[in-house]
Amino acid sequence: MNPVDIIVKKRDGGELSAAEIEFFIAGLTDGRIPEYQVAAWAMAVYFQGMSAAETTALTQAMAASGDQLDLHDALPPGTVIVDKHSSGGVGDKTTLAVGPIVAACGLPVGKMSGRGLSFTGGTIDKLESIAGWNPDLSEAQFRRQLAEVGLVIAGQTANLAPADKTLYALRDVTGTVPSLPLIAASIMSKKLAAGADAIVLDVKCGHGAFMETQGDARALAELMVAIGRRAGRQVVALITQMEQPLGRAIGNTLEVQEAIAALQGQGPADFRTLVEAVAVEMLRLGSPERETLDAAQAAARVRGVIASGAALAKFREFVVAQGGDGGQVDDPTRLSAAPVQMIVPTPKGGTVQRVDARGLGLVAVDLGGGRQKKGDPIDHRVGLMLHAKVGDRLEPGAPLCTMHAADEAAGAALHNRVQSAFHLVDTPVEALPVVYERVAASYQGV
Amino acid sequence: MNPVDIIVKKRDGGELSAAEIEFFIAGLTDGRIPEYQVAAWAMAVYFQGMSAAETTALTQAMAASGDQLDLHDALPPGTVIVDKHSSGGVGDKTTLAVGPIVAACGLPVGKMSGRGLSFTGGTIDKLESIAGWNPDLSEAQFRRQLAEVGLVIAGQTANLAPADKTLYALRDVTGTVPSLPLIAASIMSKKLAAGADAIVLDVKCGHGAFMETQGDARALAELMVAIGRRAGRQVVALITQMEQPLGRAIGNTLEVQEAIAALQGQGPADFRTLVEAVAVEMLRLGSPERETLDAAQAAARVRGVIASGAALAKFREFVVAQGGDGGQVDDPTRLSAAPVQMIVPTPKGGTVQRVDARGLGLVAVDLGGGRQKKGDPIDHRVGLMLHAKVGDRLEPGAPLCTMHAADEAAGAALHNRVQSAFHLVDTPVEALPVVYERVAASYQGV
Repeated sequence: MNPVDIIVKKRDGGELSAAEIEFFIAGLTDGRIPEYQVAAWAMAVYFQGMSAAETTALTQAMAASGDQLDLHDALPPGTVIVDKHSSGGVGDKTTLAVGPIVAACGLPVGKMSGRGLSFTGGTIDKLESIAGWNPDLSEAQFRRQLAEVGLVIAGQTANLAPADKTLYALRDVTGTVPSLPLIAASIMSKKLAAGADAIVLDVKCGHGAFMETQGDARALAELMVAIGRRAGRQVVALITQMEQPLGRAIGNTLEVQEAIAALQGQGPADFRTLVEAVAVEMLRLGSPERETLDAAQAAARVRGVIASGAALAKFREFVVAQGGDGGQVDDPTRLSAAPVQMIVPTPKGGTVQRVDARGLGLVAVDLGGGRQKKGDPIDHRVGLMLHAKVGDRLEPGAPLCTMHAADEAAGAALHNRVQSAFHLVDTPVEALPVVYERVAASYQGV
Repeated sequence: MNPVDIIVKKRDGGELSAAEIEFFIAGLTDGRIPEYQVAAWAMAVYFQGMSAAETTALTQAMAASGDQLDLHDALPPGTVIVDKHSSGGVGDKTTLAVGPIVAACGLPVGKMSGRGLSFTGGTIDKLESIAGWNPDLSEAQFRRQLAEVGLVIAGQTANLAPADKTLYALRDVTGTVPSLPLIAASIMSKKLAAGADAIVLDVKCGHGAFMETQGDARALAELMVAIGRRAGRQVVALITQMEQPLGRAIGNTLEVQEAIAALQGQGPADFRTLVEAVAVEMLRLGSPERETLDAAQAAARVRGVIASGAALAKFREFVVAQGGDGGQVDDPTRLSAAPVQMIVPTPKGGTVQRVDARGLGLVAVDLGGGRQKKGDPIDHRVGLMLHAKVGDRLEPGAPLCTMHAADEAAGAALHNRVQSAFHLVDTPVEALPVVYERVAASYQGV
């Protein structure tokens, strides 16, 4: 096989065979196929697309390019390993609450998570707000904690889907990011390599998300469901709203506090709604009673472990198991706080129509809470607490949000950018739904 | 400016500004823009095309990426510098005959030519069949010979359009060769850099050419005429037939002999027709009498310098000026001949419908007369002399061609490939025209 022939076949609209895709991805992984050929191929895929069969082959080839985990031997026979994935948003601390809830319901959750980059945060960064909490686990530690605690979240230590890393880095600099099959294969390859039997996808949709329209989000969701089915995994996708940040907290410590609040049955309604929706889907896919569990029953179980305190206790157990300070879970005000808190008021009155999630995510980065580039140090204490969300009616001078900053100057410099992230109008605006739709059937029925 | 933004703009069908194209080509030339970005951009151009304005900007940016010659100071005031270009074919020794004819008519010809690669031969290789002939001239020698002899053909010593070299090498391995604007810009950038005021393009069309249909060839021709007009150059294109090799000789020495025959008014009619057509266009664009010279008058002048011996004398003068053996021009049988000559007969009777030019070009390479890769040594003596061309009616056993080989084994090994290059049918086949059409107006009138 010849890389040029494969590029030309895709360029001319042909359907690549699994063997051709495997050859190409193997060559990309070991460097035999140079980056310029990968780039040309990616642009051809951008224009010609890929069938569900091609996208599945691509996903599987990328999943097979590195380590492939199997956590079943750490767990009771018959355990379904359920993973969740969010396509990325601002203020998205869903995993912090969903993980303990699902684990408290008896479904073990073992996740490898990443750090934040640019305007989106990372689960590992958020958890590191808790004193002593450590993401660096050996594989043996990971398996032991999964078996004993039922909840483990670690930094990605295994070499999962290195082909995806290479391809994604190249897409980023060659204008080939917005290709549905390449996006779907990138997400799903890491989930397959991590050994998930079932996957709940949270596909964000709106101005603050990669998919701006519900149609685009649905197409991506349907394609990922199709890949799952073809690869023998159960996949359910929720298309969820990202016209504004999720919940009210943006920033590592602030988000941990909001997640703990949700585990106590408190905090912003939109965040709690999403947490419940994701947890329900995970339980329906993976809990021991999944065959007979309907959505209402699953929701009742989720509410039950919150009301009983079992979910919060599971979170504490998990934190302590990874070296974290359980006392900070018991009293989240003991988490390190930013020295300066500044209220940003609205200069004019009106109803909030939209909150620029990406803009506020970048403000949080510039406060020191996120990274411009990989490896940058971050300040876990800083961030934003929103006081206004879409649909809220504000008088002039009413607070938009509180900035948590390292010093006065850092906060003052970002004041105007925070204000301009809130779009106010004079007409009434309806509050936004949290979940637009649930996608469990794949597109074109395949 | 950012390379990714330029890739994305083209990907989305936008028209790039001249400044954006100049930035991209400058970055490609000095390596600041990596090959993977160039490859992605080339694939985006493949899909989205380029306007005449964009293609002209690309051509000019590539022409400006290296040396730009100006030969006017070596020539009388008012001299129009006319160049010719062939899009490449098998048996195409047109330059060898056209150059002396046009020079004998008083229009100086100074060309930089290349060596052969794969199935196409190179003018420099062909001329090196003549003992002592030397393509390596300094720029001063080149200018002096152009002024004194009116005809000079040298290897490409100047650093002409290095951006085109880089881009072409990358297109070759990324499936982005067959893009009309990229092809047109590649050809025209070298002609602009070489300082041509006027250019006659021989756009080959047919199974043995890059452009297989007359429509494709016309589109390329019109685009190059448009580039010329926008860049302030006169351009005329002839769309010529390449359903079979040009003339009867394939191979360096054999082609020199055929070119000398044409200068003597002899040899294959198709080759002589093409030589006259190209020479006529060059004279109409550049001869001192160009304002009043019509096609019939130009053709009469071409025939005149052949009949008088002036064209052949000019060829001899040129050969000797570059160190070649004039005696071999006077008696071309004194050129080194291959030791083995084998006639390849047709196994069955019929009428020749098509002769696979590319296939025979590759046979000539495998006989030792061409290169698999740059720098390979070649045997000037070997090649093929065709005895049958399209439209000829053959009895079984009639000769298809004579192989000129270095030894019996080399020839015998290629016997079957030569036979299979001739497609015979039982129905009558019309002889093919040499020139399909002349394109002097640009497409869409721009």
